[in-house]
Amino acid sequence: MILKPKYFEDFEVGLTFESEPSFISKEEIIEFASKYDPQSFHLDEKAANNGPFGQLTSSGFMTLGKSFTQIFEMGVYNGTSMGAWGIDELRWTKPVYPGDYLKTKIEVLEAKKSTKNPKRGTARLKHTVTNQNNEIVMTWISNQMLRTKR
Amino acid sequence: MILKPKYFEDFEVGLTFESEPSFISKEEIIEFASKYDPQSFHLDEKAANNGPFGQLTSSGFMTLGKSFTQIFEMGVYNGTSMGAWGIDELRWTKPVYPGDYLKTKIEVLEAKKSTKNPKRGTARLKHTVTNQNNEIVMTWISNQMLRTKR
Repeated sequence: MILKPKYFEDFEVGLTFESEPSFISKEEIIEFASKYDPQSFHLDEKAANNGPFGQLTSSGFMTLGKSFTQIFEMGVYNGTSMGAWGIDELRWTKPVYPGDYLKTKIEVLEAKKSTKNPKRGTARLKHTVTNQNNEIVMTWISNQMLRTKR
Repeated sequence: MILKPKYFEDFEVGLTFESEPSFISKEEIIEFASKYDPQSFHLDEKAANNGPFGQLTSSGFMTLGKSFTQIFEMGVYNGTSMGAWGIDELRWTKPVYPGDYLKTKIEVLEAKKSTKNPKRGTARLKHTVTNQNNEIVMTWISNQMLRTKR
């Protein structure tokens, strides 16, 4: 079993692999929110305490970037990624709080070689992001383009 | 016609509204990529020139955060957003380059009051992001929770 798939052919349907955990800090939540998601419950601790989640929470867009980076830093896609063309069915199922540790598990749902370019294929990857209590905080499916071996 | 909807009831099906343009700088692309999408074609100008897009491009996750922030900064959702529970059918249709100006148009596809909480509803919003040449670079549908007027 390949633990770190790299080329399109390595992404066999049913293959699963998992990242190391990443820490979510209050400082990072606020910094991210100030540029990319300036809602008060991501940006301001005091306002967040009176907001819909009762405390500061991570922007879902930040959780998404962290999840992608976790997998990328395993060495997966490095030098073989040709970008992604889309995301399907992204769900934020639980809030992410300062102090959480998140990790991402991937399952290969589909793998389809390009009919236009034999050097490329798309892997459909289900990402499941969990916190330190094993609660699922986010799921998403990426459509990741990858180089073939030749 | 309400140009800046705020409460759930303002988000009538078929309503459209549009952001001001935002500038995409090389510095911001590289800074974002270093934390949330460290692929060489978002991070390193030289490597990007030999990569799949022939030059540096914005992380799709950054384009997503910019698009959300454009709408939020219009005053839409401010104080009425209760977070979003998901994204559907996100598509990156063209690369985003340093120097681009992007704007976001929203169309309300559906609006559904919560059956559990009468103070909340979900608006399904189609976002279309275009560049300065009127090319569509990204589309995405958010499921945005909003407070009702009372």
